[in-house]
Amino acid sequence: MSKKIGIADTMFARVDMFKVVRKALEDSQEPGIRLERYTVPGVKDLPVACKKLLEEENCDICMALGMPGDKAIDKTCAHEASQGLIATQIQTNKHIIEVFTHIDEGKDEKELYEITKNRTYDHTMNTIALLKGKSLSRNAGKGVRQGKENIGRIR
Amino acid sequence: MSKKIGIADTMFARVDMFKVVRKALEDSQEPGIRLERYTVPGVKDLPVACKKLLEEENCDICMALGMPGDKAIDKTCAHEASQGLIATQIQTNKHIIEVFTHIDEGKDEKELYEITKNRTYDHTMNTIALLKGKSLSRNAGKGVRQGKENIGRIR
Amino acid sequence: MSKKIGIADTMFARVDMFKVVRKALEDSQEPGIRLERYTVPGVKDLPVACKKLLEEENCDICMALGMPGDKAIDKTCAHEASQGLIATQIQTNKHIIEVFTHIDEGKDEKELYEITKNRTYDHTMNTIALLKGKSLSRNAGKGVRQGKENIGRIR
Amino acid sequence: MSKKIGIADTMFARVDMFKVVRKALEDSQEPGIRLERYTVPGVKDLPVACKKLLEEENCDICMALGMPGDKAIDKTCAHEASQGLIATQIQTNKHIIEVFTHIDEGKDEKELYEITKNRTYDHTMNTIALLKGKSLSRNAGKGVRQGKENIGRIR
Amino acid sequence: MSKKIGIADTMFARVDMFKVVRKALEDSQEPGIRLERYTVPGVKDLPVACKKLLEEENCDICMALGMPGDKAIDKTCAHEASQGLIATQIQTNKHIIEVFTHIDEGKDEKELYEITKNRTYDHTMNTIALLKGKSLSRNAGKGVRQGKENIGRIR
Repeated sequence: MSKKIGIADTMFARVDMFKVVRKALEDSQEPGIRLERYTVPGVKDLPVACKKLLEEENCDICMALGMPGDKAIDKTCAHEASQGLIATQIQTNKHIIEVFTHIDEGKDEKELYEITKNRTYDHTMNTIALLKGKSLSRNAGKGVRQGKENIGRIR
Repeated sequence: MSKKIGIADTMFARVDMFKVVRKALEDSQEPGIRLERYTVPGVKDLPVACKKLLEEENCDICMALGMPGDKAIDKTCAHEASQGLIATQIQTNKHIIEVFTHIDEGKDEKELYEITKNRTYDHTMNTIALLKGKSLSRNAGKGVRQGKENIGRIR
Repeated sequence: MSKKIGIADTMFARVDMFKVVRKALEDSQEPGIRLERYTVPGVKDLPVACKKLLEEENCDICMALGMPGDKAIDKTCAHEASQGLIATQIQTNKHIIEVFTHIDEGKDEKELYEITKNRTYDHTMNTIALLKGKSLSRNAGKGVRQGKENIGRIR
Repeated sequence: MSKKIGIADTMFARVDMFKVVRKALEDSQEPGIRLERYTVPGVKDLPVACKKLLEEENCDICMALGMPGDKAIDKTCAHEASQGLIATQIQTNKHIIEVFTHIDEGKDEKELYEITKNRTYDHTMNTIALLKGKSLSRNAGKGVRQGKENIGRIR
Repeated sequence: MSKKIGIADTMFARVDMFKVVRKALEDSQEPGIRLERYTVPGVKDLPVACKKLLEEENCDICMALGMPGDKAIDKTCAHEASQGLIATQIQTNKHIIEVFTHIDEGKDEKELYEITKNRTYDHTMNTIALLKGKSLSRNAGKGVRQGKENIGRIR
């Protein structure tokens, strides 16, 4: 049966992260997965957006795509959004994979773009694995980083 | 059928933000939308105010209008209010568009007024779009800022 | 029909804030309002105290009176209390007007007393208005401050 | 009828706080109160421990005894524990008296011990009063401190 | 009857913490305990992972294994994860023993490994005790530390 990934994204972000998700899904060649997109103004609107995707649009899993700004208030917003996303997951018993790139993570726009693209791409693959019930345990404890290089296992 | 936007605002704010919402709604020329206003003392009273608007006054969506002060305690109050607004959204599966201008965001009263007016105006348009089920995806990932200039997409 | 305001106060506070509430209620000359008082050790006990006043003592609205200390741990306690008070309001759909004076708000004991007295007095009037369903919108966006002078509207 | 106080304590603490509770209960000479003890590893395990004491062991009230460490991470743990204890109280409509002494509160081990002993003792008396429905209002607004000297009322 | 411990771990961690749990369980020689493993990308995914283990996989207790990074954002993530784990415990009335080692806790990789291994091992023993209903009160108030040396009781 067909499965549905809910994708909540924002107008605030400076990269079209949804496009990366679509590309990753195509590359995965996993059959029977549809995307349901819902765009909101900013990261603080993502928790209820995901709640609606999971409960009203019958999505099986969600991705919350956001790009918090670089000011103190933006960090607080991202924190509040993350708390809301975790609360939503606990209430629904469904995963919401949070993909946030902070605007000050890259030294310039080029690097910011690369981090965002790679993190979104990698987390789409994680989302598909969780959706399909494929175990991620093979990669447990290996220092895996999404959007940056893995740092590996100790011993 | 007629739709209702709940508007929760505060006595603490230094701008009549409700007036801006009313102006934006008029400008939108969207038919069949009514406003239900509920004024409370400060931002920490906004979560329950919105909860009541959504559940007791049958509003379809809310705007929470506030202007937190510039002291450390005010920042904490705003943070608590935001957490409560997100919790309320998750409980009701309805959006509450938070429109907060921090009193220290403008270099003087004139700029503070402009930011507040523009942010409230822009977010009213977002609220109407969400209420009417119009997709915001056309503007996703474009670095849209309410109250200040958009900063645009990277690539 | 008679209405009931629940008053939760603390042994930790250094001012008898309840006395100020009683005075304000008398001054208001509003008929048919009773006070139900419940004293707890400190501010972190206020959320459940209010929950009990609202649900077990059938209060229609609450005031949470507290005076957090001046150390870092006290600020954290106040923050936790505020989060709990907001959560309680969202769960019960009833207002809890938080009246906190921080012990370091006044330059000396005299000023601390004045701020506490005035803030408690003003917020009692707000509580009565909300209880009686009187709109506060006339004072919205006017920079109203409880316990200190109002700072007024911009434009 | 017999009443039951749930006592949740930790292996992490450096003082046997439970012993102090037992002594205080004896000193109080209150009849018909039993203690139900439940020991967990650290403060972050206290919220669910209290939840279980209240709901599965039918305790009427709880005390959460802990001694957070002096590092930044310990302060964060204590904060998370406190938030969980407040959430538990709101969900159960029962009091959990939090008795935390921070390891850096005393200038040496002797003082730390004294503060811990006194605070635990005083809060046991508060717990008994709340359990027995005895009003604490006589001591409201008097600057009462548990574990240290009271600082008194202003005016 | 057989009991089940849910083990949620992450790809982000740099040590295979699950392996340590398995070793500790073997060493304990406790009969009738099975492990159910569920690997997720990072610590923020642990709360819902544990919720699913407890509710969908019928685990009796959980361990949440994680290794937060050393940047400010990592500390915030760990804080959010901890809040979610506590919320999950309160909702389910079941313990989730959090085993987090911060990447900057050790002065080098060797020490980091030792702390992680010892803390995971010790907390597995605590988990087994709680699962089996064995009282930990014998060790209450003794300054017990998992992963580092105990610091002992005062007096």
